[in-house]
Amino acid sequence: MVGKSQIKFIKSLQQKKYRALHKLFVVEGVKTVKELLASRLKNYQVYVSDPSVLPPNTEGMTLVAEGDLKKMSSLTTPNKVLGVFHMPEEKEIDFSNWVVALDDVRDPGNLGTIIRLCDWFGIPTLLCSSATVDCYNPKTLQATMGSITRVNIVYANLHSVLQEVKVPVYGAFMEGKLVYGEKMPETGILVMGNEANGVSKSIEALVAKKISIPQFGTTATESLNVATATAILLNEIRRS
Amino acid sequence: MVGKSQIKFIKSLQQKKYRALHKLFVVEGVKTVKELLASRLKNYQVYVSDPSVLPPNTEGMTLVAEGDLKKMSSLTTPNKVLGVFHMPEEKEIDFSNWVVALDDVRDPGNLGTIIRLCDWFGIPTLLCSSATVDCYNPKTLQATMGSITRVNIVYANLHSVLQEVKVPVYGAFMEGKLVYGEKMPETGILVMGNEANGVSKSIEALVAKKISIPQFGTTATESLNVATATAILLNEIRRS
Repeated sequence: MVGKSQIKFIKSLQQKKYRALHKLFVVEGVKTVKELLASRLKNYQVYVSDPSVLPPNTEGMTLVAEGDLKKMSSLTTPNKVLGVFHMPEEKEIDFSNWVVALDDVRDPGNLGTIIRLCDWFGIPTLLCSSATVDCYNPKTLQATMGSITRVNIVYANLHSVLQEVKVPVYGAFMEGKLVYGEKMPETGILVMGNEANGVSKSIEALVAKKISIPQFGTTATESLNVATATAILLNEIRRS
Repeated sequence: MVGKSQIKFIKSLQQKKYRALHKLFVVEGVKTVKELLASRLKNYQVYVSDPSVLPPNTEGMTLVAEGDLKKMSSLTTPNKVLGVFHMPEEKEIDFSNWVVALDDVRDPGNLGTIIRLCDWFGIPTLLCSSATVDCYNPKTLQATMGSITRVNIVYANLHSVLQEVKVPVYGAFMEGKLVYGEKMPETGILVMGNEANGVSKSIEALVAKKISIPQFGTTATESLNVATATAILLNEIRRS
């Protein structure tokens, strides 16, 4: 059973300010909730409309009516499971490996895809500028799958961090040097820019090496989407 | 001015069956409509709530009230421009270059991103299985930007086409040979599978070379999203 105030509380977590206040976030769907339950994250509560979809001894499991689950959900067609989890503590940035840094990426789907790419390519830290979209946004979580549990996501003043780093700072720019000819080092930071404006001027000033992905179509082509460009550049870093 | 029946007609084009019946599709937004007007596509009608956003001599330009534009739009916050265009004729598949083939890709955003990637990497033909999502879906068009005008998108029975092709057929598989070691030929087909199920069994039987993207993270990681995997493999084809 679940009361009105509890439903209201869960719904409030759809907003970034309440997530930040309570340090809690919501994930929906059997597969992702199971993956988070098996991860290093601590669960706060797990609401199910059908208890058979989770192991009977699941800690914090609460049976609720389908209608109540629907009220809590951010989806038009809610799943049978809604999990509330404690946000993991941000860990130190691991400069002994490559770091991906995002300069104000705004689309939650793009952020989710990039988290999943970091996970795939073994990038321990994703550094996000303060204006980058929240990684606990429901649309981001939908695109990350379980990767959110394996990548350390750090929100910080990107400018301050880049001013002090000792590893080489690379950035993706349309007019950068073609990446195919570059021998990438063992460690570094790869800065990816905002969807509409690319890397901002103040961050650009801190980028030592501008790189680009060769274009083979007509010049009328738009730039690549930030998530697909990140995919290609991480692949280039790992293959070199 | 625009009548009720015309609004109803435009709205009907949000559904695939009416698009297919009339061979017309809708795009929204100044930038994309402008790009389509400048392309090889023929426009049927262009509705504007603010005529200053397009050149005054734009053929088929019709001034409408903001409220009417809102009624026609598939967006919650409509743009100032809504263009209705004739679908281009499908051209022959160009086997003198690489072809990307999609085996039942269902997400319109993924399809849009892949069209944009084909454009970037100079892939003239995108071959889609009959069950692949419609490329004139509003969400697909939103992700392609203007690339839809430069890539020849062909819907066909993928199985029949692959049975008869003379170029080598490559496909993306989790258990395929690592792509880094492969010397890619000048021409070929790259088959990418469905988001949930990958390449289907009947298509798999027609794939001569299974390739995969190396994974550097933990094995718990999900497969890559089909659009990011396509980005990496097209980059591998072009760099080799």
